[in-house]
Amino acid sequence: MNSLKTITFIGSGNVATHLANALFHKGLTIKQIYSKTLSNATTLANQVDANSCTSLNDIETGADIYIVSIKDDEITNILPQLSIKNELIVHTSGGISIDVLQSFQNYGIFYPLQTFSKHQNIDISLVPFCIEANTQENIEQLVGLAKTLSENVQVVNSEQRKKIHLAAVFACNFSNYMYTIAEDILNDSKLDLNLLKPLIKETADKIEWTPAKEAQTGPAKRNDQEVIKNHLTMLAHSKDYQDIYKLITENIIKKS
Amino acid sequence: MNSLKTITFIGSGNVATHLANALFHKGLTIKQIYSKTLSNATTLANQVDANSCTSLNDIETGADIYIVSIKDDEITNILPQLSIKNELIVHTSGGISIDVLQSFQNYGIFYPLQTFSKHQNIDISLVPFCIEANTQENIEQLVGLAKTLSENVQVVNSEQRKKIHLAAVFACNFSNYMYTIAEDILNDSKLDLNLLKPLIKETADKIEWTPAKEAQTGPAKRNDQEVIKNHLTMLAHSKDYQDIYKLITENIIKKS
Repeated sequence: MNSLKTITFIGSGNVATHLANALFHKGLTIKQIYSKTLSNATTLANQVDANSCTSLNDIETGADIYIVSIKDDEITNILPQLSIKNELIVHTSGGISIDVLQSFQNYGIFYPLQTFSKHQNIDISLVPFCIEANTQENIEQLVGLAKTLSENVQVVNSEQRKKIHLAAVFACNFSNYMYTIAEDILNDSKLDLNLLKPLIKETADKIEWTPAKEAQTGPAKRNDQEVIKNHLTMLAHSKDYQDIYKLITENIIKKS
Repeated sequence: MNSLKTITFIGSGNVATHLANALFHKGLTIKQIYSKTLSNATTLANQVDANSCTSLNDIETGADIYIVSIKDDEITNILPQLSIKNELIVHTSGGISIDVLQSFQNYGIFYPLQTFSKHQNIDISLVPFCIEANTQENIEQLVGLAKTLSENVQVVNSEQRKKIHLAAVFACNFSNYMYTIAEDILNDSKLDLNLLKPLIKETADKIEWTPAKEAQTGPAKRNDQEVIKNHLTMLAHSKDYQDIYKLITENIIKKS
């Protein structure tokens, strides 16, 4: 059961926008949206029937929970300026320690494991939420809130959350960089990434039912030295791409 | 219009299985399935109402097209043993030159850009087919055949096909290796890749509507040195993963 009924957001970016809208549509009350940029604050506030503010001093106490959803490197700057006392406060970042919140009495992490874009709909019921908090009671409160949104709520510790974040960098940020290199190579030959999209989609889908290690295919997996040599020659114009190709190929061969 | 009505497959692996079944279901006649392993040949032959054979000498002439779909490094060994004369012969490999077929009179490439697993259904109508051949007439015949299966048929030259294959190594093989590393990191913390699957899926979906370069997110993109330093420390137990993290991160920073 969720006991957190009134919510204030500090931040109005992609994560805040998706969370605030999703919580609003579940019938919760969004009290305030803070953003240092007025138009951002009011855009989101209008969507979720909330008040907006652009000064941290204008954030009212008394909400059941304060969700800090701003850029990682701004979190530690903003926290000392908040006049929150006993209320529960969380941030939504995978990479920032829970310790940054330890000057508060009730605090935690409310980390949705998804990449959000403002204008792209996400089925939030499928998004895993990683929960962490300073007391068992706060954990339970946050789990209750997360369960109003998602079927996949996990209580993790700081160590695990850091590992999840690191793993996500490989699985998502670095995969996307592999797509970028592919895009670059294709554009060079007047081709475009559309050609590879069904293959990219299938590669991502495949791990639904096969461990990634077993799903590995390609010249490195087969240790096909002739193809590998040809590929390295084709990459001669870009030492960066050549180095990446070489390093990942060596790794796959070593593991095969 | 497709004028290639009777087809013999040399090979019975994943690609041959998907292609033979798809062509059979479009009403084409599969004459023979060759595999050096009898059970593989008969399994596929039974699915598509064809004869099976395990000796290259038993492959009959007179089919409209011979589709060689075997492991890359076996193609050049097997071709000189075939007694095909004027009939059209193709291979299905992205990485093998069309020149390996030049002792034949009519030859080409019939390259489906997808990763096939035997027991996984694929919507073949969405699979891009890359076509190449030694004459314009053969190109048209192969395009006709490919169009019976797919809405996405492209005539490419050898140079482009090699680039597509190289790009696919980055976009698919190397992405999958990034998933493998993520899986490894999570397993180390008694977590599993399920946690990241919605995120992986969304990362792959995102490039449907955003160029990969613009979709890049993460600590490297933000040049967040503190997070990067922490991640490298967390990877201290694996120099391999540390090196990959470092190299890709440096690349993303340089390009941002």
